[in-house]
Amino acid sequence: MDVALKLIGKIHSQLKSIEDCPLQENENAPEAEIEIFPEFREGIENIKAGSQVLLLTWLHEADRSIIKCVPRNDFEAPRVGVFSTRSPDRPNPIGIHSVEVLSVSAKGKIKVSSLEVLDQTPVLDIKPIWKTRGV
Amino acid sequence: MDVALKLIGKIHSQLKSIEDCPLQENENAPEAEIEIFPEFREGIENIKAGSQVLLLTWLHEADRSIIKCVPRNDFEAPRVGVFSTRSPDRPNPIGIHSVEVLSVSAKGKIKVSSLEVLDQTPVLDIKPIWKTRGV
Repeated sequence: MDVALKLIGKIHSQLKSIEDCPLQENENAPEAEIEIFPEFREGIENIKAGSQVLLLTWLHEADRSIIKCVPRNDFEAPRVGVFSTRSPDRPNPIGIHSVEVLSVSAKGKIKVSSLEVLDQTPVLDIKPIWKTRGV
Repeated sequence: MDVALKLIGKIHSQLKSIEDCPLQENENAPEAEIEIFPEFREGIENIKAGSQVLLLTWLHEADRSIIKCVPRNDFEAPRVGVFSTRSPDRPNPIGIHSVEVLSVSAKGKIKVSSLEVLDQTPVLDIKPIWKTRGV
């Protein structure tokens, strides 16, 4: 089975290091730009300003060996299973971000509302959000 | 950059072929069981019956070459960019499923409510759902 991810684009953000990042995107994250690589640009036709989308990223600085962790940097709390947390350090560090599309350029650049990922983070996928389902 | 996914488990379901699958899980999908592989079982500590979780799967029968497609099997509609659809046929066929945990066994088996993926589908991740964020 081929389980190697294809990188369809990357993020441009003013967040240059992990210290710059809020814990979650509802904590004052800045706007960011998604650059879609040329071979995947036909795939973003029909994405428009105003769309709510799920953006999937590959959190490339994550520690993939983590199975148990402390929740939300509370280092005195007991360690919990990583799958009951949103820690980016996990076996498959796939980031899921609910963002609003602010603009789409002809050259495959999508500007989005508050996004808490690092500059140069690889992009895996974009999906429309269906309001009736929650995801 | 290592972008090979780790398979943390697999799905057991009565859905044995794509013809058995409803288009989305809110269309009468059956219960299913997530088997977590032994080396990742510590990661599901703290997941309990009644939790709402996001389950990430690898839709292993997908066609990863698709960039444009017809939406929802409406073959007379114009083709649209795949990233404006929820088609499983896409460069990185990551399934995102909002499910309720019905039970967790000591041996790493998690029973969940309606899930529309095929038997033997690989599992990539489980994350808690934060109701305040929608995802």
